[in-house]
Amino acid sequence: MTRNPTFDDLSGLCASILERGYGYGPEEARITATLLVEADARGIASHGVSRLAFYRQNLDLGHVRPGSEPRVAYETPCSLVVDGNAGVGCYVAGFAVDRLIAKARDAGVCLCGVRNSNHYGIAGYWAELIAAEGMVGMAFTNTYIAGVPTYGKLRILGTNPIAVAIPEADGRVFLLDMATTTVTHGKVELYDRRKKPMPKGWVVDERGREVTDATAFEKTFYASNFGGHLYLGGAGEESGGHKGFGLALLVELLCSGLSLGASSQDTFPKGGVAGITHFFAGFRLDLFGDPAALKGHVGGILKAVRESGKAEGQDRIYIHGEKESEARARSIGSGVFLDEATKAYLRGLAKDCGLDPIEGLGA
Amino acid sequence: MTRNPTFDDLSGLCASILERGYGYGPEEARITATLLVEADARGIASHGVSRLAFYRQNLDLGHVRPGSEPRVAYETPCSLVVDGNAGVGCYVAGFAVDRLIAKARDAGVCLCGVRNSNHYGIAGYWAELIAAEGMVGMAFTNTYIAGVPTYGKLRILGTNPIAVAIPEADGRVFLLDMATTTVTHGKVELYDRRKKPMPKGWVVDERGREVTDATAFEKTFYASNFGGHLYLGGAGEESGGHKGFGLALLVELLCSGLSLGASSQDTFPKGGVAGITHFFAGFRLDLFGDPAALKGHVGGILKAVRESGKAEGQDRIYIHGEKESEARARSIGSGVFLDEATKAYLRGLAKDCGLDPIEGLGA
Repeated sequence: MTRNPTFDDLSGLCASILERGYGYGPEEARITATLLVEADARGIASHGVSRLAFYRQNLDLGHVRPGSEPRVAYETPCSLVVDGNAGVGCYVAGFAVDRLIAKARDAGVCLCGVRNSNHYGIAGYWAELIAAEGMVGMAFTNTYIAGVPTYGKLRILGTNPIAVAIPEADGRVFLLDMATTTVTHGKVELYDRRKKPMPKGWVVDERGREVTDATAFEKTFYASNFGGHLYLGGAGEESGGHKGFGLALLVELLCSGLSLGASSQDTFPKGGVAGITHFFAGFRLDLFGDPAALKGHVGGILKAVRESGKAEGQDRIYIHGEKESEARARSIGSGVFLDEATKAYLRGLAKDCGLDPIEGLGA
Repeated sequence: MTRNPTFDDLSGLCASILERGYGYGPEEARITATLLVEADARGIASHGVSRLAFYRQNLDLGHVRPGSEPRVAYETPCSLVVDGNAGVGCYVAGFAVDRLIAKARDAGVCLCGVRNSNHYGIAGYWAELIAAEGMVGMAFTNTYIAGVPTYGKLRILGTNPIAVAIPEADGRVFLLDMATTTVTHGKVELYDRRKKPMPKGWVVDERGREVTDATAFEKTFYASNFGGHLYLGGAGEESGGHKGFGLALLVELLCSGLSLGASSQDTFPKGGVAGITHFFAGFRLDLFGDPAALKGHVGGILKAVRESGKAEGQDRIYIHGEKESEARARSIGSGVFLDEATKAYLRGLAKDCGLDPIEGLGA
């Protein structure tokens, strides 16, 4: 039995591939590789190293310009707007979050809009990075168009995730990291492959009608920008679909609105740079009192929820971030799980770049 | 045909009732009446003047202490924690938001936790009040327990609403104001009265099982704290119920966590003060550049969404806050609609307080 590659081996390999094969600079490669492997380590394979294919495509289509340096376009003592200059998304986000943390240390709070960036990996990573400073951290981003408004049929907003990290007792962190769409597209692809009907509330077809046939949906999805994902709560208003749509719109306005950047529907133009926008926030716990007392109080609230009565047939209530941090601990201990297709893909990339394979990647 | 009472007549009457009948001070009465009538004027009857009955009950059960003055318990240049001292919720919120706005004017941004408060009316009102200063405004609150965690069965969190207001072009405001539960309890009561099955995703019974019989649910709902509302996305994870639960938990941590106040499950203890907590945020648009340019850009994004293709059978995509602001304009023009039961209830209260009835309230 092949064991899994270690976190460090895997991120080292990915960084080398990005440097040699994609023309990324060393720091661009390092931070991008970290984000990808962090996703796999947490069990979020959709945002893991298999994304190297998407990053390759972005490069080939001229959506990203490695080597481009982001710059601060506007700032106050408690805010900044970063222009990513079409650079590597994770590198731009790292630039922005570093400056946000420094400002929030001084001012207590900092808000940061980013325009002209690119895909920045899992939003939760950035929120957590801010929370590691003893702050409440928030990260939002718009994305390539994915979802339709309530009563609409055009894909005009992205999956527009919300990530918020709040430090609690014992070094733990509450970490909500959620796409505002009901599900991500990977789920639809899975149902297509399995020829399984989707539940209602996931998608609408090109005429805006709720549909459950994943295979039929996939065919029309790529034919035009009509038809797409529904937001949390599904179609219409009866089960709150307008609320999920509202959250997506909120994320859009924070990201593209406050950065004067491109809205989801204007991102990834043919032959142009991606133009993705982000929004970050960080504020120190001591804005509200003694940080240790606050963390303890937050921990107590979460403990009561964790230990409250379970539904029939259930034995655990998960606090947000627990599944992922437990998966990460396992990955650090016994290596990062990758499926066979991803391993084969990585082996191919390594070979193309003249790199030695790493242990646990198979042959 | 009876015409509707005017906004001013109705809020004047409600304020007089609160002063004479409930022992509220003039300012406590004025602001509470404003919040109640604002809700009816916007078409949100669940939070309108019919709530006077709930406020009466709070008074009788010792949950609220009119005349109690809130105080600033902790502050920095960009934050404050208010102790509501068990006072009237709308009055406490007004106290907190006034100070938040003053601080945000100076510092650019202000965050405010409030503990030991009470029901503060529609969250959107407070977010909008901040937005009227040319800021992004946010308002959150915990509430009496209403919902169960994903895979749980105990009502342990409130309806925990999220309200965010963002100024856009032409003096308009994007206003998202949503309970994080799929629906509010009023919806369940309506289905009970109509003997209509509820859609799945609204509630679970006392064993944590998804149920659709509103009448059966209502019976067990009042028998114990087991069984209750689901959060946006419904039960389990397939349609994102864990995301809605995560949003409710986020609101809980911002409100009770950062104010060191009572969590939803500790509010409204028998014989004790309510202990409701809030969280407010406000930040100036000029933290990100020229406010006029930012409002125009936000307006452009919303315009594109508004004008995008409609689903079959639909003729309008609503931006959040539009329905309510249009209803409010109608109410200002032709009076505030109240149903007959609410009118009769108000006439009774007016009579008990020795007040003259107002025009449009019937007889």
